[in-house]
Amino acid sequence: MAGRFVYEFGGKRARGNARMKNLLGGKGANLAEMTNLGIPVPPGFTITTEVCTIYYKRGKKLPMELRKQAAAALRRVEKSIGRKFGDSKNPLLVSVRSGARRSMPGMMETVLNIGLTARTIPGLIELSGDERFVYDAYRRLIMMYSDVVMEKGAGIEPKDDESGIRKQLEAIMDQMKKEKKYKSDVDLKAGDLKELCSRFKRKIKEVLGTEFPDDHNMQLWGGIGAVFASWNGKRAVSYRRIEGIPDDWGTAVNVQAMVFGNMGKNSATGVGFTRNPGNGENEFYGEYLMNAQGEDVVAGIRTPAPINEYSKSEHNKGLVTLEKAMPAIYKKLDSFQRRLEHHYKDMQDIEFTIENGTLYMLQTRVGKRNGPAAVRMANDMLKQKLISKETAVMRVTPGQIDELLHPMVDPRAEMTAKPFAKGLPAGPGGASGQIVFSSNDAVSWTKAGKRVILVREETNPEDVEGMRAAQAILTARGGMTSHAALVARGWGKCCIVGCSDLHINYTKKEMVAAGKTFREGDWITLNGTKGNVYEGQLPMMEATEENVLLHQFLNVCDSVRRLGVRANADTPDDAQRAKKFGAQGIGLMRTEHMFYGKGSEEPLFRLRKMIMSKTQNERSKALEELYPYVKKDIKGVLEAMDGMPVVMRLLDPPLHEFVPREKDQLEKLARDLNISAEELNQRADALHESNPMMGHRGVRLGVTYPEITAMQVRAIFEAAAELVKAGKDPYPEIMVPVVAEAKELLSQKEIVYRIYGEVLAKYNLKKIRHLYGTMIEIPRACLVADRIAQTVEFFSYGTNDLTQMGFGFSRDDIGGFLADYIKKGILPEDPFQSIDQSGIGELIRIGIQQGRKANPRLEIGICGEHGGDPRSVHFCHQVGMNYVSCSPFRVPIARLAAAQAAVMYGNGEKKSKKKKSKRTKR
Amino acid sequence: MAGRFVYEFGGKRARGNARMKNLLGGKGANLAEMTNLGIPVPPGFTITTEVCTIYYKRGKKLPMELRKQAAAALRRVEKSIGRKFGDSKNPLLVSVRSGARRSMPGMMETVLNIGLTARTIPGLIELSGDERFVYDAYRRLIMMYSDVVMEKGAGIEPKDDESGIRKQLEAIMDQMKKEKKYKSDVDLKAGDLKELCSRFKRKIKEVLGTEFPDDHNMQLWGGIGAVFASWNGKRAVSYRRIEGIPDDWGTAVNVQAMVFGNMGKNSATGVGFTRNPGNGENEFYGEYLMNAQGEDVVAGIRTPAPINEYSKSEHNKGLVTLEKAMPAIYKKLDSFQRRLEHHYKDMQDIEFTIENGTLYMLQTRVGKRNGPAAVRMANDMLKQKLISKETAVMRVTPGQIDELLHPMVDPRAEMTAKPFAKGLPAGPGGASGQIVFSSNDAVSWTKAGKRVILVREETNPEDVEGMRAAQAILTARGGMTSHAALVARGWGKCCIVGCSDLHINYTKKEMVAAGKTFREGDWITLNGTKGNVYEGQLPMMEATEENVLLHQFLNVCDSVRRLGVRANADTPDDAQRAKKFGAQGIGLMRTEHMFYGKGSEEPLFRLRKMIMSKTQNERSKALEELYPYVKKDIKGVLEAMDGMPVVMRLLDPPLHEFVPREKDQLEKLARDLNISAEELNQRADALHESNPMMGHRGVRLGVTYPEITAMQVRAIFEAAAELVKAGKDPYPEIMVPVVAEAKELLSQKEIVYRIYGEVLAKYNLKKIRHLYGTMIEIPRACLVADRIAQTVEFFSYGTNDLTQMGFGFSRDDIGGFLADYIKKGILPEDPFQSIDQSGIGELIRIGIQQGRKANPRLEIGICGEHGGDPRSVHFCHQVGMNYVSCSPFRVPIARLAAAQAAVMYGNGEKKSKKKKSKRTKR
Repeated sequence: MAGRFVYEFGGKRARGNARMKNLLGGKGANLAEMTNLGIPVPPGFTITTEVCTIYYKRGKKLPMELRKQAAAALRRVEKSIGRKFGDSKNPLLVSVRSGARRSMPGMMETVLNIGLTARTIPGLIELSGDERFVYDAYRRLIMMYSDVVMEKGAGIEPKDDESGIRKQLEAIMDQMKKEKKYKSDVDLKAGDLKELCSRFKRKIKEVLGTEFPDDHNMQLWGGIGAVFASWNGKRAVSYRRIEGIPDDWGTAVNVQAMVFGNMGKNSATGVGFTRNPGNGENEFYGEYLMNAQGEDVVAGIRTPAPINEYSKSEHNKGLVTLEKAMPAIYKKLDSFQRRLEHHYKDMQDIEFTIENGTLYMLQTRVGKRNGPAAVRMANDMLKQKLISKETAVMRVTPGQIDELLHPMVDPRAEMTAKPFAKGLPAGPGGASGQIVFSSNDAVSWTKAGKRVILVREETNPEDVEGMRAAQAILTARGGMTSHAALVARGWGKCCIVGCSDLHINYTKKEMVAAGKTFREGDWITLNGTKGNVYEGQLPMMEATEENVLLHQFLNVCDSVRRLGVRANADTPDDAQRAKKFGAQGIGLMRTEHMFYGKGSEEPLFRLRKMIMSKTQNERSKALEELYPYVKKDIKGVLEAMDGMPVVMRLLDPPLHEFVPREKDQLEKLARDLNISAEELNQRADALHESNPMMGHRGVRLGVTYPEITAMQVRAIFEAAAELVKAGKDPYPEIMVPVVAEAKELLSQKEIVYRIYGEVLAKYNLKKIRHLYGTMIEIPRACLVADRIAQTVEFFSYGTNDLTQMGFGFSRDDIGGFLADYIKKGILPEDPFQSIDQSGIGELIRIGIQQGRKANPRLEIGICGEHGGDPRSVHFCHQVGMNYVSCSPFRVPIARLAAAQAAVMYGNGEKKSKKKKSKRTKR
Repeated sequence: MAGRFVYEFGGKRARGNARMKNLLGGKGANLAEMTNLGIPVPPGFTITTEVCTIYYKRGKKLPMELRKQAAAALRRVEKSIGRKFGDSKNPLLVSVRSGARRSMPGMMETVLNIGLTARTIPGLIELSGDERFVYDAYRRLIMMYSDVVMEKGAGIEPKDDESGIRKQLEAIMDQMKKEKKYKSDVDLKAGDLKELCSRFKRKIKEVLGTEFPDDHNMQLWGGIGAVFASWNGKRAVSYRRIEGIPDDWGTAVNVQAMVFGNMGKNSATGVGFTRNPGNGENEFYGEYLMNAQGEDVVAGIRTPAPINEYSKSEHNKGLVTLEKAMPAIYKKLDSFQRRLEHHYKDMQDIEFTIENGTLYMLQTRVGKRNGPAAVRMANDMLKQKLISKETAVMRVTPGQIDELLHPMVDPRAEMTAKPFAKGLPAGPGGASGQIVFSSNDAVSWTKAGKRVILVREETNPEDVEGMRAAQAILTARGGMTSHAALVARGWGKCCIVGCSDLHINYTKKEMVAAGKTFREGDWITLNGTKGNVYEGQLPMMEATEENVLLHQFLNVCDSVRRLGVRANADTPDDAQRAKKFGAQGIGLMRTEHMFYGKGSEEPLFRLRKMIMSKTQNERSKALEELYPYVKKDIKGVLEAMDGMPVVMRLLDPPLHEFVPREKDQLEKLARDLNISAEELNQRADALHESNPMMGHRGVRLGVTYPEITAMQVRAIFEAAAELVKAGKDPYPEIMVPVVAEAKELLSQKEIVYRIYGEVLAKYNLKKIRHLYGTMIEIPRACLVADRIAQTVEFFSYGTNDLTQMGFGFSRDDIGGFLADYIKKGILPEDPFQSIDQSGIGELIRIGIQQGRKANPRLEIGICGEHGGDPRSVHFCHQVGMNYVSCSPFRVPIARLAAAQAAVMYGNGEKKSKKKKSKRTKR
């Protein structure tokens, strides 16, 4: 026997359980688990993810052994539910669904109602007593099957959107409704549907060249194959890219007895969350539709009713709750959801169907939630002692924290503004942007540097990339569990759904709402937390720093993490903000700040003078003039961070960028330097470099012009000395940039300690607390880190430059090829976004290993932009850094990521860690 | 006891021997060794190099213990020679000389005649019966001692050249000669000299403020200290920089009984070589002066006489040989030189003095020789079985090979040209240049891009930097062992000395010869092999490829080396030359060649068209036009190297450099592309990059424009296929440049093997021998070399770019700081000249280790410019590369360096090497 490919569930006992997600997929594992918990699910069986792997290995062929095992399982299903697959009297219908390890909502295929054939249809009509229901099910089977199995599954690519088989069948259906003057699908009579099925089958033969199969087994195996094939469908692959799901996981396939929520008044179908996924409140929240199939709820075509009072909203408060309509069944459902949450110890997203008064749970899985909800749930469950601190930390994603830190519409502006439309608040935060009406436009406008709001009737998986690109999403239809809502929530993106006030015309690229016409490119503003849509561009407010729940949660994170978190800040204001966000110091202060933006004229002039100086005299004079500006900034930041370390990078200005271009500026400078304009021009030309990124910069300036280093070091120590005299506790860390060789640091160290001595004497101090260290941003520095570490007290990885030089990728010039690299899968992502762990990461590892070996007390951090990227933070934890540093707004994300890293990789003692890394392959 | 600081020699037995050079310096060790061989040397003792280290550690203080040991040794010297130091009757005089591990001729200080005081002078006059000799010795002592000990040794820096004490004393002496109307020093009578000594002592007191010491012990210890101090004198430090001698070696000091070659007619002094250092002939070669001290020979003031018939030349053939003048002593000398060469198994450079008929050997050391001599001696001694193959290989330096490969004056031009002056052929090869008369001018003119010949009366150690900068050196005075001759020979530089036809006027910056006046800036040509000086710029000829001796020697090298040697060549001509020089293949063929230089208009236009193409259509068309040019070059080189591998780098042109600038070029291009000039300008602007070195180049172009790769690969395979059809054996290795990631190589590999299949089909071939590989020049490539190695069959290190990116040093912009880096000792040398072994070398090691682990059959070479640098070649051997590749002219040097590496580091099996490197610290 080739191993077990099939695992039954339903009935009394399942072979699988929730821990078998890798093998059975999330859905299958949970169906098995529910079975074992005594919760009723329609019986069925799961074909394992291993089969998916085999399927692709064998060139899309299924193993023979599978058919035997599936047939046996099917017999047990028949026995359990008391119907027979393919039977003319009492026919069993089954669904075939995908189920990957991680949920990929709507990205793979599903076929329902399998088993309807000329032979079984009469029996089912007899059994249900509802001919319309049966033909409606049959036309759904034909539509799905022809699309999923006969077209996509067979690898047929339609010329364009309109020529796909599904669109053509929909056109036939629309045509019939038009003929009969019906408004809606529900107006179609049994006879209409029967006729429709015949027309469908003729069309299929005509377009695809094959007959729609009238054999239940052929339908079943066609469906199974198509689901496996859909793992490599375009949408699924694209989703996996975005979500970072490996291609080789594969999907399982669940074959399950069909139960019908659309079998009449006594039937219904619905979805629910064990807690409110929009805000995290501990209340059962859900929606349902009477006499409907599950897809009707998810598709967002009919507005669903609330399951209970709590679930009522503006939009559905007039509808009857399930609690009122079927109190006994609601009670059962409520007990099931409680049991499930308690069992899984996390908020569950459940699907249920009531078939003729019998409640079946179709699915349970961990529910998606937005940022505020995730944080509240984590806090609440921790308080309830349902979960541990470590688990709580893992319950919130960095993206969700980001979401909480998103800008929101300024409440004062909102008080006077009147929304022209209202919808469901599906994704929190606020956003302004220009209207676009298609996913493609969203992508291309965004690439062109615009901020857009994607407006759609409803979204579907084909829209994913445009949704990603847009600032926010606005749909006219769909509920809180519609595609748009689910996806936006997953990303923490501002989103409003079910905004039925909108009337969209895709062809004209316009929409009408409240009597006004909005065209492509018009500005609107969304408040995704309230569901309000405003005309124009309302002012935004930065995310509040005073979110109490978030602070509680981040404190939990702090108690778990080992890695320190600092911020990059150049001004006292930035430093204050960083502290509020929880930074434990400044990991990078760029003294260049004063030369940019408002009020920079004076210091900029002095800097230019210094740069254009040729003799040491000229330069010393310019530096003297620059000195007070430099000292002022430094003192301000040291004071703001009182008691905490502040890493100050010595000047690393890209010299040639500071060469003045305007004539009057040049003249002024020439006058001040007392040289001719011609001489000045010559000096400017001499500063031109072919590859400035690898030119005369950083410590290289300090080596050739020691007076520049001296000026800055004096500014740092004098600022600190003055603060010490004022009773403060300044803690500067002096960082030398662009170092490739230990001797560069020795040459600067001489200057630093000469000045240090002078400042101590001048202020009559014994000591100023400080460290001397270096930025590690040149590849060679990592390779000679042992010698460098003997010279300094800290390393701070500058991963931007390390990535530039390690890859030989000029960040300014990468535009010419990076897109191609990512598209062709040569790089998984932009290495400037997340540390390239195998290449640049190896350099970092080598540097840390060598550095710590030579100087075990070495402080090691990162100050490149990667410091705020969660995966990079995990990496920094794993390689044993002391801290990460990132922009102030990313500090909360880094605090969470650091805590998650500690949970995932342990906080093990440094000693054992070091031993291990020694044994590691180089 | 603090250890042994003093080692005696002379007499019957010495404590040291030749193997103790590190401790005793070369001179001291050899004096001890000679003693042990029974060869008479003036007795004395050596103070060890360890004392030098102690001296500098203790702030220029000598250890007390040394005085005790030295006093004891001095007593033994007194006993051995039968005179007493400081004795009034029978006084012993001593010399104090430096002696480092490696000879640093004239770079450190010497004091002779120590021990002459008011007390000992009468005794010595009595003893020698020659008052003039004694006062001459005394005035020499005063001149040397005041300069070396009282001025330099005390750290006194004269304002300028003229204000040094030595110059001032010389002026007094000149003044006296003028007064007395003497022509030469020898005209000075005993009384004159006595008076001179008095004047000297007054001047010393006046200028330096201290009395000249009249105490023999004070003189001795002053001299010892001054010699140690001269280790860090300017000249010595500068020489060590050039020669790569570590600062911490230190010098030994030799205190030795004075013997006098100027004690009358029965005395003489001389130098000799056991074989001819100018051409390597196995003949005793030397010069001597009757009644003179050794410094007179070296200083080149009097033209010395030949020691034997063989040593006669145009310039000294009229003088009496030593063999004739003192036959018995000559016979003894000859037997000593034989014994010494046989003992040391290498050509010896010896110094001897005859004092009143007694022969003393003052020194023996390995003799410097020029390239032709080194090669001949190695060949001869190997044939004599005096040395092994391995030793022979170590006897020639890469610089000496280089010298053999130097250009020479075209013999045909020389046949008709008449030399205006003739001198001694001290350094071989030919050179043309503009006359300069000072070392400083030589340096500054050369920096300004000029080629100069340094013309001097004679050179001294202060001229070293100018000599280095000049194309060649021409002196009016001095023999084959003069300073100029020794230094030039060491460097393999063209040099003519003792050209007495020249009359130089430094003030006017001109010289007169053969009745003609030559001014600064005038062109002359030297044939250093013959000693001829020509007016104007004679045509040069490349070094002969047909040097039989050299070929014999290089074949010995080939039999010793493991490392392969290939050449970088872009054209069939280059390839031919490379083969003649012994290249075993082409390690780098840059297909860009055709776009540079003559005849490049057509291909350049096509390339520009390709670069300026925007659509794939435009580009494909341009590539099609480019194709025949590319294929032609490739076919030519493959054919030239028939049977040997040719590594072909896929196009890596710096795109923006090829953007045309001239208006008519732009217009022509626009017409050809059928676009407006404006559009063309826009495209040109779009190609501008901030850091082109890290921009859209190499494989990045191949990824974004696969058609460029396809064109080149087709050219390679079709060229090869045509050669196969013609019965040849082409062996292309296709090399992808600028690779950072294995998947880049996979993307190109698809193209390569698609085209390969097409070409095989087109030519109906089963196979074309080839390899697919990559250049390793991006730091990241070294770190992910395991994955890269799984994709390719060879690595070729591009160390130029690896150095650029590893250091973050743009080669084009390094000018701003590299000089400071080297001056301040931050870098030992330009890392683009010789591989930075600790940093960039570590990247290379990592890449090789990972690459070989993943793919044990991986072929690994180097094609950067370092491939022709001997130290880099040693490194390549040590890290286990398969071959180096360099410019054709460097191939012989690489063959030698590879052989020397094999001798120095062994040729051990790869397996044990790999194991070892694994254990090595990372």
